Amino acid sequence: MKLFFDRVALIGVGLIGGSLARGLKKHGLCNTICGYGRSTQELDKAVELGVIDSYGSSVKETVLGADLIIVAVPMSAFETVFSEISGGVTEQTLITDVGSAKASVIDAAKKAFGHLPEGLVPGHPIAGTEKSGVEASFDSLFDNRRVILTPTENSAESAVDQVKQMWQKVGAEVVLMTPDHHDQVLAATSHLPHVLAFSLVETLGKMHESSEIFRYAAGGFKDFTRIASSDPTMWRDICLNNKTAILSVLKKFERHLKTLELAIEAQDEKAINDIFVRAKMARDENVID
Amino acid sequence: MKLFFDRVALIGVGLIGGSLARGLKKHGLCNTICGYGRSTQELDKAVELGVIDSYGSSVKETVLGADLIIVAVPMSAFETVFSEISGGVTEQTLITDVGSAKASVIDAAKKAFGHLPEGLVPGHPIAGTEKSGVEASFDSLFDNRRVILTPTENSAESAVDQVKQMWQKVGAEVVLMTPDHHDQVLAATSHLPHVLAFSLVETLGKMHESSEIFRYAAGGFKDFTRIASSDPTMWRDICLNNKTAILSVLKKFERHLKTLELAIEAQDEKAINDIFVRAKMARDENVID
Repeated sequence: MKLFFDRVALIGVGLIGGSLARGLKKHGLCNTICGYGRSTQELDKAVELGVIDSYGSSVKETVLGADLIIVAVPMSAFETVFSEISGGVTEQTLITDVGSAKASVIDAAKKAFGHLPEGLVPGHPIAGTEKSGVEASFDSLFDNRRVILTPTENSAESAVDQVKQMWQKVGAEVVLMTPDHHDQVLAATSHLPHVLAFSLVETLGKMHESSEIFRYAAGGFKDFTRIASSDPTMWRDICLNNKTAILSVLKKFERHLKTLELAIEAQDEKAINDIFVRAKMARDENVID
Repeated sequence: MKLFFDRVALIGVGLIGGSLARGLKKHGLCNTICGYGRSTQELDKAVELGVIDSYGSSVKETVLGADLIIVAVPMSAFETVFSEISGGVTEQTLITDVGSAKASVIDAAKKAFGHLPEGLVPGHPIAGTEKSGVEASFDSLFDNRRVILTPTENSAESAVDQVKQMWQKVGAEVVLMTPDHHDQVLAATSHLPHVLAFSLVETLGKMHESSEIFRYAAGGFKDFTRIASSDPTMWRDICLNNKTAILSVLKKFERHLKTLELAIEAQDEKAINDIFVRAKMARDENVID
């Protein structure tokens, strides 16, 4: 059976939602895309750019008659959005999302729908840039990127299959995971690095003569802090919505950092060396640039 | 007066030393370059690559008759190298270095020479990659990069001028600073980020199923941890040789991180948001990608 959606409802037309819409169109996966967002100006821009074909005046209106609903809003908006969706869909209507924390998306769905619909397949594309907004969107954002789907206990097999195929068609590699495992992995590999980058820039920004200090920031620092240019609201929401997993890995990090600090304080050459050698090996073995 | 050196002695023929040698040759700033290093194999390679013209069997032999001595060895080797140099030079022989921490280089010079020679002009190019070794060297490494010179109270004005001109000729922008100020600025913008990157990778490497976790590391994480691929020995030496400044900024960082942690724990939206907004503004205003 060919994967094709007659009417896609895109709730949230930013970098991720916009890029997915572009991908769906590019690969001929849908007939029309109707968007919804808080800013009419942004929606007009999205229509102008050809990312969406039209937009609704409410979530409810936007999802009416849709055979695929994509929720790409900030984490804090999920419960409200799901509540508005719940009135206009059937148990089987395909609903997916791109939220960065999955347990809290599933909690929001439970609250809004009263249960977990069979058509709901939560997902998370591991992609993005530090930019945001529909103007930053592009159709190849998901090329060779991983998308993690975290089906609920109620997700229908056919629904999971369709969402999986959709992501594969726009170029992504799809992996299935439990919501909690997703949240732990992302806390370690994405949320913690962002928290550290924000804290590092905050530290430097509060130093005496900070603008002079920033001037001498070289390659490593630039790379390191680029993610601190990400949308503060989005990252605040992620911190609030993946709190437990983030705090757990953050405390682990603080312990390792303290160990290194004490080794530097004690001028313990061997201890410092061991940490650095282990870290270099772990990175070189596991991360492909 | 045209800047030209008849015989350059390069002690330490790695990424930085090799790149400077290539730059000197490319811009016609010297007649011959004689190198010295611990590994004959590396030195043979350096001759083969045309980075140096010959090499000596000791530091003492290598610097004999040199009108410019460049010390580009690991931080831990400075005192030994300076001691060997001290026997074969005059008060005015031009000596510079590329060490990442300046107060400890100056301390090493004091111990080795018994005083600070007029010809000694300590320096530090803010350049490099996570690679090391002469094979990774290239003549444009310093193009548009900043080089910080930290003259001592004894450095002759003409010596400072010559070292400054040398760096400018190979493409760098030269800035003068006191050694202590250099050490504080670099602790914040380079040494601390490296310490954090090593600690982050160490944290993830020690987690259960770490190889799976690394697999989901996306863009930000890759950038963040690239510097953890840097040479462990070099970074161990930097930690030992810029201990005070690194510990000072590391403790500041830990305090800021703890504040953010408590805000996440308390679900304090406003506090988290304020930190992220301030950090994003500080970075966007001060760091040019």
